[in-house]
Amino acid sequence: MIDTWRNKRLCSLLGVDYPIIQGGMVYNSGAKLAAAVSEAGGLGLIGAGSMTPDLLGDQICKTRSLTDKPFGVNLPLLFSHARDAMDVALAEGVRIFFTSAGSPRRAIGPLKEAGCTVVHVVANPALAVKCQEAGCDAVVCEGFEAGGHNGREEITTMVLVPECVAAVDIPVIAAGGIATGAQMAAAIALGAEGVQIGSRFAATVESSGHENFKQAVVASGPGDTQLVLKSHVPVRLLQNRFRDEIQALEERGASSAELAEHLGTGRARSGMLEGDLDEGELEIGQVSGLIDDIPPVAEIMRRLLSGYEEAVQQMNM
Amino acid sequence: MIDTWRNKRLCSLLGVDYPIIQGGMVYNSGAKLAAAVSEAGGLGLIGAGSMTPDLLGDQICKTRSLTDKPFGVNLPLLFSHARDAMDVALAEGVRIFFTSAGSPRRAIGPLKEAGCTVVHVVANPALAVKCQEAGCDAVVCEGFEAGGHNGREEITTMVLVPECVAAVDIPVIAAGGIATGAQMAAAIALGAEGVQIGSRFAATVESSGHENFKQAVVASGPGDTQLVLKSHVPVRLLQNRFRDEIQALEERGASSAELAEHLGTGRARSGMLEGDLDEGELEIGQVSGLIDDIPPVAEIMRRLLSGYEEAVQQMNM
Repeated sequence: MIDTWRNKRLCSLLGVDYPIIQGGMVYNSGAKLAAAVSEAGGLGLIGAGSMTPDLLGDQICKTRSLTDKPFGVNLPLLFSHARDAMDVALAEGVRIFFTSAGSPRRAIGPLKEAGCTVVHVVANPALAVKCQEAGCDAVVCEGFEAGGHNGREEITTMVLVPECVAAVDIPVIAAGGIATGAQMAAAIALGAEGVQIGSRFAATVESSGHENFKQAVVASGPGDTQLVLKSHVPVRLLQNRFRDEIQALEERGASSAELAEHLGTGRARSGMLEGDLDEGELEIGQVSGLIDDIPPVAEIMRRLLSGYEEAVQQMNM
Repeated sequence: MIDTWRNKRLCSLLGVDYPIIQGGMVYNSGAKLAAAVSEAGGLGLIGAGSMTPDLLGDQICKTRSLTDKPFGVNLPLLFSHARDAMDVALAEGVRIFFTSAGSPRRAIGPLKEAGCTVVHVVANPALAVKCQEAGCDAVVCEGFEAGGHNGREEITTMVLVPECVAAVDIPVIAAGGIATGAQMAAAIALGAEGVQIGSRFAATVESSGHENFKQAVVASGPGDTQLVLKSHVPVRLLQNRFRDEIQALEERGASSAELAEHLGTGRARSGMLEGDLDEGELEIGQVSGLIDDIPPVAEIMRRLLSGYEEAVQQMNM
């Protein structure tokens, strides 16, 4: 099956065996995770959003020491170090960038001049069209069910993927609600050419998230995540004391400023990297309810591919 | 392909050629729509939620005059006429009931005594388990993207279907975000044994909705529906003046009582049956953005089946 996938457009573009991209996640996706995914035939992404430019440089070198296969960097464009992070990654030889949070229009110039493949993350088909016009090579369409920061339109993967496939000619990568081979098959049925998977890779041996965070993901059940802070910066979080407080403020009609004050800084770090399950921000997707173990990445890749084949077999009439 | 589908468990249970169920929708799904879907090999459902028991009886007779094939009734259990409506439908010989809004535990006794097939609509896997324990023959799992009244958990079809498939042994029917053959294929990939489709059938020649409403669905684009009234009774509505007013109240932190007062009564009737696009409630799913014509039901059925086959073909590695 490797050859059949490898000959497809998205795999050719990224130089990978399988159209499975590990989403760049703050505090979870460093060198170990990205290298493991790339080694297993997918595309690993280092999440630059929680790293200083120096740390990013170190992580890129470390990833390269762990794998000869292609990997990339996820760069949130609204992130304060975005430009420095981009320069470091370019200097270190990274040529695959997944950009998010913001418009790709300004960032794409220097990336394309350096010969990079640029993929932007969108939550609506209008932005997918803008990405294509700006010169992006592909788009990630991330549905409402995805973890962490999310679009305001609340369009789910089931609806967003066909809308984006109809709107653009470049490859569409589905994200949000994908943790199993059956869900990967659903995404391909919808017209996506690949999938970007975050939550499932956050709960692996190689993820750099805190063990407490990984265990909280495993312990969570259906309906335990919610999209909150919609009037501020929408983010999907696992239930905990901090989220309950935020939701109580929202129910009282708190202003964006009040919400920002309660949010403070460092919540994502304390929750996901330091393991403070009460006061930290636990960013994870709705599929958290379907995740019940913490295996190595290679095992997840095997499950995705065999689950995909099983799903296709039972669909053949 | 008919025979392959027909031999599957859900089609045998319902006595239909294809596992395509037309969702029972207030003001849209009367005799003409239900009969057209059943005639085309799916299962038509008369939506009892907007009918007096007398009108329901008339619509059942009319449906029977239009088709010899099986059809059913959708019965919202919290609806004030629910018990009378059930009695009328039973007396008129209906033996397929899709129940929703409430627990099936009390209603299922008389229905099962009369030899009915009973399918309940759920928005979380815990309720799916309760339905199986209560003796339901199948469940409809309706995701966050579905139109009209909706669950509080906000679980999307992509996540809800695998959660329910893992939780119960009875057939799972996917609903929410399904208007095309590709979306039907995605639902089957997720493990559903059939699909329930509402919005796409609302915008057909045979739907009894007002022409203004159908045209509003066709004119709508991505992101134009939102789930509102979450603190009252969550409902997904198309953008219009009424919904803007409700959202402004919600942003101010209005109480459930204030929201109920502004809502008043008859909003769904005025919007969907009488065509008041400004002050009426326009219940439709997120897939509204993918609907751009008002064809006859038979054409929708053809598109669903051919779209399904195309999706499966491009998935075969």
